[in-house]
Amino acid sequence: MKTYLAEVLGTFLLVFIGTASVVTGGFGGALPLGQEGIGLAFGIGLIAAAYAIGPISGAHLNPAVTLGVFLAGRLPAKDVVPYWIAQIIGAILASLALWIIVSGKTSEPITNFGANGWDVAKWGMSSAFLWELIGTFTFVTVILGVTAEKHSTAFAGLVIGLTLAGIHFAMIPVTGTSVNPARSIGPALFTGGAALSQLWLFIVAPLIGGAIAGVVAKARIFEKD
Amino acid sequence: MKTYLAEVLGTFLLVFIGTASVVTGGFGGALPLGQEGIGLAFGIGLIAAAYAIGPISGAHLNPAVTLGVFLAGRLPAKDVVPYWIAQIIGAILASLALWIIVSGKTSEPITNFGANGWDVAKWGMSSAFLWELIGTFTFVTVILGVTAEKHSTAFAGLVIGLTLAGIHFAMIPVTGTSVNPARSIGPALFTGGAALSQLWLFIVAPLIGGAIAGVVAKARIFEKD
Amino acid sequence: MKTYLAEVLGTFLLVFIGTASVVTGGFGGALPLGQEGIGLAFGIGLIAAAYAIGPISGAHLNPAVTLGVFLAGRLPAKDVVPYWIAQIIGAILASLALWIIVSGKTSEPITNFGANGWDVAKWGMSSAFLWELIGTFTFVTVILGVTAEKHSTAFAGLVIGLTLAGIHFAMIPVTGTSVNPARSIGPALFTGGAALSQLWLFIVAPLIGGAIAGVVAKARIFEKD
Amino acid sequence: MKTYLAEVLGTFLLVFIGTASVVTGGFGGALPLGQEGIGLAFGIGLIAAAYAIGPISGAHLNPAVTLGVFLAGRLPAKDVVPYWIAQIIGAILASLALWIIVSGKTSEPITNFGANGWDVAKWGMSSAFLWELIGTFTFVTVILGVTAEKHSTAFAGLVIGLTLAGIHFAMIPVTGTSVNPARSIGPALFTGGAALSQLWLFIVAPLIGGAIAGVVAKARIFEKD
Repeated sequence: MKTYLAEVLGTFLLVFIGTASVVTGGFGGALPLGQEGIGLAFGIGLIAAAYAIGPISGAHLNPAVTLGVFLAGRLPAKDVVPYWIAQIIGAILASLALWIIVSGKTSEPITNFGANGWDVAKWGMSSAFLWELIGTFTFVTVILGVTAEKHSTAFAGLVIGLTLAGIHFAMIPVTGTSVNPARSIGPALFTGGAALSQLWLFIVAPLIGGAIAGVVAKARIFEKD
Repeated sequence: MKTYLAEVLGTFLLVFIGTASVVTGGFGGALPLGQEGIGLAFGIGLIAAAYAIGPISGAHLNPAVTLGVFLAGRLPAKDVVPYWIAQIIGAILASLALWIIVSGKTSEPITNFGANGWDVAKWGMSSAFLWELIGTFTFVTVILGVTAEKHSTAFAGLVIGLTLAGIHFAMIPVTGTSVNPARSIGPALFTGGAALSQLWLFIVAPLIGGAIAGVVAKARIFEKD
Repeated sequence: MKTYLAEVLGTFLLVFIGTASVVTGGFGGALPLGQEGIGLAFGIGLIAAAYAIGPISGAHLNPAVTLGVFLAGRLPAKDVVPYWIAQIIGAILASLALWIIVSGKTSEPITNFGANGWDVAKWGMSSAFLWELIGTFTFVTVILGVTAEKHSTAFAGLVIGLTLAGIHFAMIPVTGTSVNPARSIGPALFTGGAALSQLWLFIVAPLIGGAIAGVVAKARIFEKD
Repeated sequence: MKTYLAEVLGTFLLVFIGTASVVTGGFGGALPLGQEGIGLAFGIGLIAAAYAIGPISGAHLNPAVTLGVFLAGRLPAKDVVPYWIAQIIGAILASLALWIIVSGKTSEPITNFGANGWDVAKWGMSSAFLWELIGTFTFVTVILGVTAEKHSTAFAGLVIGLTLAGIHFAMIPVTGTSVNPARSIGPALFTGGAALSQLWLFIVAPLIGGAIAGVVAKARIFEKD
């Protein structure tokens, strides 16, 4: 039970710090928070969770990561669904907390809670899909590499968080960067509209990307003999 | 006595580097320091103190952290008030040093010393209060997680500082981000006006947030069995 | 074989995250990704690869690094050309992936894939050449220093990645910053034009810089006795 | 002799990466490098040197640090002047390298090589002096704390570099931030004018700040018993 509670708390941390940086960092007068700050906020949320609750649950915080870790043979099948549920609960709680806080904004009320999406006037759906798939494959491959039994490192949490930040730097303007179904579900429920109708992509594409990374890691082609 | 002196020095470091980045970084012509730089300045001040004086006092630097650590059962009751006093002295010395330096500014004299506050035209008081409460709960929970006896890590100081930076990225436009009564008291004394009349919130809300984190940590629900 | 596959994957990571940040980060409406984000994206791509596949191949990801490591006497001659080929394949795959993703951009189609180059109206060719030579010498010297047998450190991957970011901060406006022939070859093939005609410089100058660093390191003048 | 060569190389790294970010990062069209990037460039230059050559010379790279380390009783008197000379040579070589590179700029030739200075129309000299003194005291105190025998840490190089970055975030608009006489001497020689006439302050104030930090550290009031 502690394991699942840890996933709830960790996903809360990641989604709360990350999406709040999108929502409130974005205004702020003269100099709004840039893509650098948003990417680092997600990366830092993950780093915080990795070292604070990582020893308990592994700090997946992300259904695509859980799927990849399972397919790589490093998580029992019975844990997959409970991890997913815990992650989604954590993300919804984070969006709820943010919604409560910013509902006190009296000027220009806030209607977007950091949801993912793509601008259909600029991007085809295939771009969004491929980006989320390749981005998640890349992300989960790094995770499975730095936590592989034969060369795991105390730096793993830092490296994984920085990688998430780097992936944001690479692709915020395309989809806002999800690579994490839970991170997309929470804000979408409070934002509605296009965020809900596009939500399927941010569930399907990351899961496929994470699954491929898991299968590749299972083959141990990127592990020392 | 060394313990308390260390808290004075550490809080000086945190508040001096952090609030100076708000005050002097904010001008500078073409490209003022952004929220990224301000958040990182606070995070770095904390990292510096954590590794330089952490071995002596634990580098709380923050009355809400001290309260949380005490309620988690990791600090004797007799140390709470002396820690608080040391932290407030360190913060006031930092604001004093900044005041002395910038009093030599001959054009556009400086009247704000990095005080916290919320814009009453934009935000209800409840937003500011909830943000500071939830932000501090999040911050102190991470601190108590990464320093828990069973899974403490040499990365703790780095993780805690990065978390403070991330919390700034998430919420600078709402309250400027305190999550630390001492960090608010120092600048408020030199700034006066609204900074003083709103100061109570930056004492009460962080203390409640830190206290909740301490009680939760005491229950050990986020620690390995 | 695992070694070469690891170089392919690692160089893919570095070039994909790095050049995507140049290409897609550069638009994004109000606040495009700055030089800070671009430099950090390259640095993070390197950090991710260093810890994920470093234990297998050393994570050179860069023909100039491989040359320097060989000349420093730390890589057998028979590995040099296969490493180079693997790195170039990884970089081309990264540019291909980016090309596939952004080919779905329906407004303002993208024609540059993060290629290096210098603005001949502003800079003489000697500036570009010297910068790439000195920058690569600096970079490879740091790499050979932090991985030297007598004082290697678990921080090596982090330090090397940060150094690559710092070199970008120093010189993006001159050449975009290569210090890595593979990183230049991939995007140039998809960009064409000046990127191809200027490509020779981003092969020759980094190789010379890396070679000098290797020869200096071989003399062990920067190693403890 | 290796020790002094290491100081030359390390100071070259720090000053080259740092001042190049000021000089070339500052143009670059739409989005010049901000204070964040400049501060990080100096911090990263120091981190690179700390892990690459720190095991040989300690990587002071700064006459004020050398003075503080000596006064703290951690460096023999006979090393002080040779360290200073090595650091100044390294800084001059860095400015020379930068001068050679950017002398190939054909449009808007460059006349400032990242020199320190204060705008006499905005700031009294006392502000510049106090900032450099307090900033250097803070910096050297952190250095002496994280490298103290009783609680030295493998994180020391990272913490010291981040601290240098944080000090830049706090005070770039006042003096450009020196806290290092060598870092000021190199660029001033190539810039001339006010950079030379104001140079004395960036020698005297940092040395005083570093000396105070050394004397305080000698008293061991911030060390565990």
